[in-house]
Amino acid sequence: MKIDVSPPRGTRDLLPAEVERRDAACAVILDTYQTYGFRRIETPALESLPLLMSGEGGENEKLIFKILKRGEKLESSLQGDVRALADLGLRFDLTVPLARYFAHNHAKLPNPFKAIQIGPVWRAERPQRGRYRQFTQCVIDVLGLRSEVVEIELILATCDALVALGLTSPVVRINDRRLLAALAMHCGVEERQRDAFFITFDKLDKQGAEGVVAELRAAGHPPESVARFEALLHEFGHGPWELDAFCARLQPGPDGEAMRDAAAGLQTIIEAVAAAAGGRYAIRFDPTLVRGMGYYTGPIFEVARAGGASSLAGGGRYDRMVGKLLGREVPACGFSIGLDRLVDALAEAAPPRQESGARRRIALLFDAEVDPVGEVVAWARALRGQGDVVSVETKSRNLGRRLTELETQGFTHYGLAGQGRAAELKALHGPRVAS
Amino acid sequence: MKIDVSPPRGTRDLLPAEVERRDAACAVILDTYQTYGFRRIETPALESLPLLMSGEGGENEKLIFKILKRGEKLESSLQGDVRALADLGLRFDLTVPLARYFAHNHAKLPNPFKAIQIGPVWRAERPQRGRYRQFTQCVIDVLGLRSEVVEIELILATCDALVALGLTSPVVRINDRRLLAALAMHCGVEERQRDAFFITFDKLDKQGAEGVVAELRAAGHPPESVARFEALLHEFGHGPWELDAFCARLQPGPDGEAMRDAAAGLQTIIEAVAAAAGGRYAIRFDPTLVRGMGYYTGPIFEVARAGGASSLAGGGRYDRMVGKLLGREVPACGFSIGLDRLVDALAEAAPPRQESGARRRIALLFDAEVDPVGEVVAWARALRGQGDVVSVETKSRNLGRRLTELETQGFTHYGLAGQGRAAELKALHGPRVAS
Repeated sequence: MKIDVSPPRGTRDLLPAEVERRDAACAVILDTYQTYGFRRIETPALESLPLLMSGEGGENEKLIFKILKRGEKLESSLQGDVRALADLGLRFDLTVPLARYFAHNHAKLPNPFKAIQIGPVWRAERPQRGRYRQFTQCVIDVLGLRSEVVEIELILATCDALVALGLTSPVVRINDRRLLAALAMHCGVEERQRDAFFITFDKLDKQGAEGVVAELRAAGHPPESVARFEALLHEFGHGPWELDAFCARLQPGPDGEAMRDAAAGLQTIIEAVAAAAGGRYAIRFDPTLVRGMGYYTGPIFEVARAGGASSLAGGGRYDRMVGKLLGREVPACGFSIGLDRLVDALAEAAPPRQESGARRRIALLFDAEVDPVGEVVAWARALRGQGDVVSVETKSRNLGRRLTELETQGFTHYGLAGQGRAAELKALHGPRVAS
Repeated sequence: MKIDVSPPRGTRDLLPAEVERRDAACAVILDTYQTYGFRRIETPALESLPLLMSGEGGENEKLIFKILKRGEKLESSLQGDVRALADLGLRFDLTVPLARYFAHNHAKLPNPFKAIQIGPVWRAERPQRGRYRQFTQCVIDVLGLRSEVVEIELILATCDALVALGLTSPVVRINDRRLLAALAMHCGVEERQRDAFFITFDKLDKQGAEGVVAELRAAGHPPESVARFEALLHEFGHGPWELDAFCARLQPGPDGEAMRDAAAGLQTIIEAVAAAAGGRYAIRFDPTLVRGMGYYTGPIFEVARAGGASSLAGGGRYDRMVGKLLGREVPACGFSIGLDRLVDALAEAAPPRQESGARRRIALLFDAEVDPVGEVVAWARALRGQGDVVSVETKSRNLGRRLTELETQGFTHYGLAGQGRAAELKALHGPRVAS
């Protein structure tokens, strides 16, 4: 049987140039995060299905790659409950594993705990352009501290990293789950219909007010709810949304105090971030920001390129997730950069440039049939001792074409083995004479 | 239901200090590899089961974590062939995926192709001390070149990396699959019994000559085969094995030419590596080295600490694997460092030391209830602008104990918020007066 050599559907192979772009971006992100006092941790790629399917992952729980049981356990499941065939799954995000990590290791961790995670996650989504079934997140979280300082520092660290990567004027949109709750209350949307309401509301950007209102009607929300919602949209148009005016307009009933707390917190965050931004990035209140995950409890935020539609990073406060595992409440807040989409955005924004002061990259060409092996190895070694990058490469009959290839691969110099140790190195760039 | 917060059986959570040790080791390894002209690539963690189970993985094929099919495909498998429930698996090494990667992407890759891979692999082994079900390999491979230059450079790059990490006097053991075949021929072991023979032979280190001979007898190898083998062991004792004398003693019949080729190759490799080593590491011929994977075709090698029992890195030539996927033969050779075991060995060998000239690590202590958020954020920002690592941390009632904690976490300085921007920073190490 011929084996298909493509990577599995929805996943991809990364060529060297792509990995180098990713590594360079990761290094900048990691360095920035570390400057804020975060430290890297790692969790396994696999987690137990009871954890992954505990209800925190929302829609993502439907997209878990599940691992078949092994050995006797599989045999007994095949005889018995065939639905219990899997016991583990690949993580679909880095937040649920972090909560488990903290619950398991909290005695060994500082308080507050400031974690960096950089790693792949997996979702069995229908593959489409720019969406992969394995993708990498760069995440920072603070556990154990309920203060706007946390949101502010997460946002500053993330924006600093994006700006350091050369992204011009990223824009942060911020909202609060408690404002969304107040909005739902204002419109008279029942508790059990809120998730569906928010999912539709989230499409305001793409579908406009009319599209959203039509969808809410079609979904069977009460006409009065839809009408109250429509009135709000008419009043505020497409923004910019003004936090105070928006909150003043809502009638959230018993949710009023939570709404006022949320608004005061957002005000603090927005002011501090704006003061630190110095024009390099912007932050604005956006009550249409929803974010999918069910576990958020307070501020939520996303960042996109100026004028860019898709977000590069997203996060928020989730004060109740750790408590469910640990038995005592631990406030928590995180911000996640999607590395794959970010690297694509950077490639569009600015083509990679040659580093100045980089090491020489030397190709030593030898003929495996003729040239003494020891000699070329020793030559390579001597050059490496001087700090050069040296690759032993094969000669070919057409030297000119070979040199062009090597230049394309990023080599700056070459040398021909078999001409003694004193053989000359020649530059590959610029005019050259093929010898 | 209470959810178990331990990591899945056989996997582990990595605390910040452990990740930092791993990252530091990876950086040294990566830098060394790059000096040899290798470039990093990445493949997905998931591969198709037909690829993973194509027979190249030997015993590891029994240890694959298999991924349950999804949606309709799972439904139809549950109705029909319940044995076909899985379609994907987690990779058990980085070699089989590399062969697929090359077969799929060869038109876009240079020739020879020199790849670095650093990433996790998964094996559903019975968990035991120092063996994990998820572990990380740092691998270099050269595809497209059949020359001892390849083996030499792989060995030098790996040893350079280990020495750069502070490992004193690593020892490389080297053998050749063709010598093993000649040995089997000499002893009259039939083709179909060779794998079992080699698996037993591989235990010479641990079980001694008598144990191995007893096991061979018990396994039902013909008495004459065992006797010929025993005679060899008596003659050479426990080594050091001398390559020429060993080969002169064997009567490999029709395998003679392959044996002489193998011996000449080993001679070239050993001489070149010894010349480059300059006493920093050693290489020696060891005909008892087998290495588990079925795909090796030529030289095989391992490296261990001087006097260390378990190997830190292993590799060899596998000239036929890519050909099975691509339809034309592509010579290939690789060397893999086991990161987990290496980091454990480094921790034993030398405790981590404080970098000199490292950045200041400053904790700014604030009270979330009292101190103005904007002020502490601005202070942190100003210090970061000077190149310091700054973490906003919480005050606590017992300042002395808090400062001790912070010092344990690696902070070098602290400052107390709420005393105006001119507040002083104080050093955490050495004698201090709690204010």
